[in-house]
Amino acid sequence: MPAKYGPGPWSIFVPLFGIAATVMVLVWTLKFRGGLAFRSRNQELIFNVHPVLMVIGFIVSSGHAIVVFKILPARRKAQKAVHLLLHLVALLAGVVGVYVAFKFKRESGLKDMSSLHSWFGMATICLYGLQWLLAFLFFWFPGAAMYTRARIVPWHVFAGLVIFLMAICAAELGILEKLTFLERAKAVRIFGEEALLVNFMGIAILFFAIAVGLCLFL
Amino acid sequence: MPAKYGPGPWSIFVPLFGIAATVMVLVWTLKFRGGLAFRSRNQELIFNVHPVLMVIGFIVSSGHAIVVFKILPARRKAQKAVHLLLHLVALLAGVVGVYVAFKFKRESGLKDMSSLHSWFGMATICLYGLQWLLAFLFFWFPGAAMYTRARIVPWHVFAGLVIFLMAICAAELGILEKLTFLERAKAVRIFGEEALLVNFMGIAILFFAIAVGLCLFL
Repeated sequence: MPAKYGPGPWSIFVPLFGIAATVMVLVWTLKFRGGLAFRSRNQELIFNVHPVLMVIGFIVSSGHAIVVFKILPARRKAQKAVHLLLHLVALLAGVVGVYVAFKFKRESGLKDMSSLHSWFGMATICLYGLQWLLAFLFFWFPGAAMYTRARIVPWHVFAGLVIFLMAICAAELGILEKLTFLERAKAVRIFGEEALLVNFMGIAILFFAIAVGLCLFL
Repeated sequence: MPAKYGPGPWSIFVPLFGIAATVMVLVWTLKFRGGLAFRSRNQELIFNVHPVLMVIGFIVSSGHAIVVFKILPARRKAQKAVHLLLHLVALLAGVVGVYVAFKFKRESGLKDMSSLHSWFGMATICLYGLQWLLAFLFFWFPGAAMYTRARIVPWHVFAGLVIFLMAICAAELGILEKLTFLERAKAVRIFGEEALLVNFMGIAILFFAIAVGLCLFL
């Protein structure tokens, strides 16, 4: 069965804003923040892995996974496989991203799970994993009866959108939190080049989410 | 014409989480932060008006305005009037809320419009005003032809939901920003009573948004 709907005029904006956010998070961490490292005496390099995994691995992947049925010209089975795989990539990136955040906090002697960013993020990752597992069991293997699937689909879509929007909100919260810390520590100048880049990354992520919505809506 | 759909089983959660957020923002500003004032030597009292207007006036009002068609047992015309009025209350509260934020910043000698919270908030208010004005002209007075209205409705709903979700995101960003400032200034203890109250207010606002979504979805 081919895709139910062909790609609409807004489809192009999903990869476009996805690329914009990807480039911005890389320029930020590599050019402004000194690069990435899993092990380093400079804990900031460990931290940098967190936004890279979350923006590229989690947000951009899961956004594309959501619109696969609308923009990938392929058979239904292939679309489902790509949907499942992209969400798995996002989930794994998200889990490693959370691990890196804890590692950074522990090695820096900071308290963790205290801010709304961490609460939103942790809830998002847990719900994301649960949603993926349930969807795998019901829609892929072993798979439920057609009648059950049809009843579950609207809930799968609704829960998926809520989780995606929570992920977007968590990302914006993380961006604001980190930038506030850096500005307060005088490591970044308010309205400086880096501050604007980071805020525009937040705007790109918002536009990415709106593009995903437009793709589903059209 | 009566309401197209009667209230679903989730309708009760919209006022419930609305009340929860309202109580929390009042307890926070009145009990923990010293109260409210439009004019005071203590600029923090001026600031406090901002979250109160934004949470109760803007978020809670606009969320209820969105679900009016689903939960208010009345004729279509009456539902529309309440929808319009609640959104107007939200818009006015939002505009005054923004004014108060600028007043606080100016009187405290702080830079404004530098954070993602202010960017999201300003964009939300501007789009909200535009959406209200266009909807008033097309759906109320003078009103467009039925054919045009039918074509516009899906865009009105989509734009309205995007703006509502931006408002939710702006609120969460504001909560995190203010709490981070207070914690850094040692005015609030991390994991202390007040910090937990403020974060739970953020969770109540998230649940309020999910309840609005469930109301529309069911």
